[in-house]
Amino acid sequence: MKNKHVVDLTDLSHRELMDIISLANDIKAKPDDYLDVCRGKILATLFYEPSTRTQMSFQTAMLRLGGSIIGFDNPQNSSVAKGENLKDTVSVIGGYADIIAIRHPGEGTAAAAAMYSPVPVINAGDGGHLHPTQTLTDVVTLYNEMGRLDNLCIGLCGDLKNGRTVHSLIKTMSTFKKNRFVLISTPELSVPQYIKDVINASECDYTEVTSLAEAMPELDVLYMTRIQRERFTSEEEYQKQNGVFVLDKEKLRYAKKTMKILHPLPRVDEIDVEVDYDERAKYYIQTVYGMYGRMALILTMLKNDERVFAPRIMPTHPFRCSNPRCITKSEKYLPAVFTEVGGDMLLCRYCDGRNLI
Amino acid sequence: MKNKHVVDLTDLSHRELMDIISLANDIKAKPDDYLDVCRGKILATLFYEPSTRTQMSFQTAMLRLGGSIIGFDNPQNSSVAKGENLKDTVSVIGGYADIIAIRHPGEGTAAAAAMYSPVPVINAGDGGHLHPTQTLTDVVTLYNEMGRLDNLCIGLCGDLKNGRTVHSLIKTMSTFKKNRFVLISTPELSVPQYIKDVINASECDYTEVTSLAEAMPELDVLYMTRIQRERFTSEEEYQKQNGVFVLDKEKLRYAKKTMKILHPLPRVDEIDVEVDYDERAKYYIQTVYGMYGRMALILTMLKNDERVFAPRIMPTHPFRCSNPRCITKSEKYLPAVFTEVGGDMLLCRYCDGRNLI
Amino acid sequence: MKNKHVVDLTDLSHRELMDIISLANDIKAKPDDYLDVCRGKILATLFYEPSTRTQMSFQTAMLRLGGSIIGFDNPQNSSVAKGENLKDTVSVIGGYADIIAIRHPGEGTAAAAAMYSPVPVINAGDGGHLHPTQTLTDVVTLYNEMGRLDNLCIGLCGDLKNGRTVHSLIKTMSTFKKNRFVLISTPELSVPQYIKDVINASECDYTEVTSLAEAMPELDVLYMTRIQRERFTSEEEYQKQNGVFVLDKEKLRYAKKTMKILHPLPRVDEIDVEVDYDERAKYYIQTVYGMYGRMALILTMLKNDERVFAPRIMPTHPFRCSNPRCITKSEKYLPAVFTEVGGDMLLCRYCDGRNLI
Repeated sequence: MKNKHVVDLTDLSHRELMDIISLANDIKAKPDDYLDVCRGKILATLFYEPSTRTQMSFQTAMLRLGGSIIGFDNPQNSSVAKGENLKDTVSVIGGYADIIAIRHPGEGTAAAAAMYSPVPVINAGDGGHLHPTQTLTDVVTLYNEMGRLDNLCIGLCGDLKNGRTVHSLIKTMSTFKKNRFVLISTPELSVPQYIKDVINASECDYTEVTSLAEAMPELDVLYMTRIQRERFTSEEEYQKQNGVFVLDKEKLRYAKKTMKILHPLPRVDEIDVEVDYDERAKYYIQTVYGMYGRMALILTMLKNDERVFAPRIMPTHPFRCSNPRCITKSEKYLPAVFTEVGGDMLLCRYCDGRNLI
Repeated sequence: MKNKHVVDLTDLSHRELMDIISLANDIKAKPDDYLDVCRGKILATLFYEPSTRTQMSFQTAMLRLGGSIIGFDNPQNSSVAKGENLKDTVSVIGGYADIIAIRHPGEGTAAAAAMYSPVPVINAGDGGHLHPTQTLTDVVTLYNEMGRLDNLCIGLCGDLKNGRTVHSLIKTMSTFKKNRFVLISTPELSVPQYIKDVINASECDYTEVTSLAEAMPELDVLYMTRIQRERFTSEEEYQKQNGVFVLDKEKLRYAKKTMKILHPLPRVDEIDVEVDYDERAKYYIQTVYGMYGRMALILTMLKNDERVFAPRIMPTHPFRCSNPRCITKSEKYLPAVFTEVGGDMLLCRYCDGRNLI
Repeated sequence: MKNKHVVDLTDLSHRELMDIISLANDIKAKPDDYLDVCRGKILATLFYEPSTRTQMSFQTAMLRLGGSIIGFDNPQNSSVAKGENLKDTVSVIGGYADIIAIRHPGEGTAAAAAMYSPVPVINAGDGGHLHPTQTLTDVVTLYNEMGRLDNLCIGLCGDLKNGRTVHSLIKTMSTFKKNRFVLISTPELSVPQYIKDVINASECDYTEVTSLAEAMPELDVLYMTRIQRERFTSEEEYQKQNGVFVLDKEKLRYAKKTMKILHPLPRVDEIDVEVDYDERAKYYIQTVYGMYGRMALILTMLKNDERVFAPRIMPTHPFRCSNPRCITKSEKYLPAVFTEVGGDMLLCRYCDGRNLI
């Protein structure tokens, strides 16, 4: 692998991603061949906010490779409560473990952790920013259930504005040929322009619709998402959006017999429990594909096992990122690092926030 | 095993129970033979309420068989906090793990989980309802310490009204011949009638007494239990009952030299710490027998390793269970399932609650 | 080993300590030789107060020896919440695990646990009293980084009054020849007299200074410590002491090129992050040495694998220890045990508190 860490799925080349999918399928076909391949290796799961689902998926992946796990899921119980900074935590745990999966509410945290960790870092979610192993899960599922990753008509439904899994899936699937995205949302929760720009620059295209039932007949895949209460400023705003799109047996009558229903889980009400009994429902088995995807990713990243204990010195920019959720707000020692993107615009290296000088 | 899951100890036939006790003893005698038998297998402990004692016993059991463990002990840190239902949690974790041990305050939860889990489920306690592996612990202890499970004079002392471990132990020991139960309690906390009915229908019998000292001389076994504060509506009611029966050195003077003292632990004050130094005290070693019992149970259940991912569709009854602590109160999608027990009475399939139509 | 438990580092003879350091170095050199040496063994980490750093170091140590781990880090989630005493918890967990590492806010807790545990107990910190594996970490680091444990000029800086790691390090390094301690602190936070007495009784000596910059040129080792907020009665007192001694690049200009900087971590502000990039900074690698030290300690202690389930009966003194933080205050059943130390003075066996009769 060209990169040591996986902060975003774009850290993997197209070739590397395909290799990981192949490896995931080989593990799924012959799990007994992989029972011991990570013997003596340790995965640390540093979860600064709880996410049992994701943490257990990583833990299971490592255990099924014969490795071991350490970690925490609660910052109140950790050295953080004594005022320790991210850099020290990552430096020390990077001395104990062979690979780190980190989740944190601060945007850009995984990028910051990767700067200091002597061992490979996997981003297990940094606020509303990135969550690459969810997208890996989705891609492994699509490849297995559809037999291909191109020429698909993919419906995406729910909160397309805030949903990071949706953005990341579109970005990745746009690198394959002739996929068509049907974006199903209310106008308030439609896909941001920069995601449309990504599709426009690719060999794929998209349509935007506001009715799930009308979109249904042409879909090869329907990717449902939860409307997340925490993304709204008022309960009223949330209630207005929640419940607009609910997949039930009635709506499924219009779908192809071969359509596959995906969902990143947890769901709340957006898929009726009746749908669970439909053969097209793939959201439970999707989590199992996710486990195989994470096994393949961990195994691939551990091949790069050179440890470097000396932290790198990076030049710091005089300007500070203005995104209030950026990790550089709370971890003051982090060097400010930006990419210039034309004119007076700076892109923050951590959170991808756009800053006008 | 005829059943895939163990929700109640009655899910095991008499023959299967004896086989598990034998296996527990074989593991105890030759632990090194079992160091790797669960290699590559994962136990998930889903503890929706904390119970370190029980959780650690399950974890230790799996680790000593060479398996691995995942799980949680705190619903605030889990996906449950995002509104996920039991069915989804069990469906997903059942894709990660090979066997599940579940504990939950809602009565009937393990039965509900067993309906949806692709892998075997063990009930690790569902509210005040059932806790089969505690009874397995007690039975393995009795078999080892007494050399037999019949012809025993068994004193049970404390809260015999609310104590689920007491009810379950009586039910199981009543299936063996000529056991005699000496029920030692205040009138307020005496054994419910339906438990007496179980004894009456068996080849065993019982007496009810109110003095621990008077009962002592004839006992082969004394099973002490804690008066649980949480079972009482007022602190005053609790204090009135607590401390009535305390086992101390003085009372032990009347006991047989070969009597064995058991307790499901944790204890509070009902056994004086002085008694710990008496050779008849078996409540510490009892927890070790429990570990061997759980090892034997896990190993036996894992032989049934066919995974079924499609959830079963069950017909639902128009009536809903009226027990306020029944799991169907909070998990609304669960089909109502009842057994008719004569006349207008329905027995809830989950919590065993009796409902008059 | 002459002692079964390690409550204080003095439980190890000088010879045993050197053997453990040698073993740590051998594990570090040939980790693959030790991948399976604790196969089938279980370490229980009983953390009655959170300390992620220490707990993870113990867990990693056991996992890298091929063993398994159980434990808790949160008393609210444990049986303790049901009123269970330390003795019962240790007795039961000692039936599940093969070795116990315990951390507790009560002074003398590890000594109390060792009285009842059927398996070896390691003190992982008992309040402000003892923390022997931190000192083991420091000694393994010094041996590796300096090549010797005698003839060193060791600066100790920060809170020398309350810092248990400082006291313990001085006591241990005083058993080696011709070490010189430079004690750098404000007058309010200087080393207690009894520690000076230890040095005076040894082949080592000490000087006390109040300036870090002035002390710097002669030091072979600089051991920095955190000023702990929780040791001060008021925020004002804390702020007056905090920030007096901060190690930065400027002060380092006066130090030897070969000096080594140690710190028990976590740090707050007492070492500037710039210093992390200096080759003399050894506080990150120090935690890795700590892991090897704990591996060697666990492996050595597990050689003593005789289990004794019967708790010992100890004679109790009519007098009770007056230290309000002593574990005997909350665990009333503990026998009062004292050593007479001249005149009317009694030394508490648990917390080392001095009591005047």
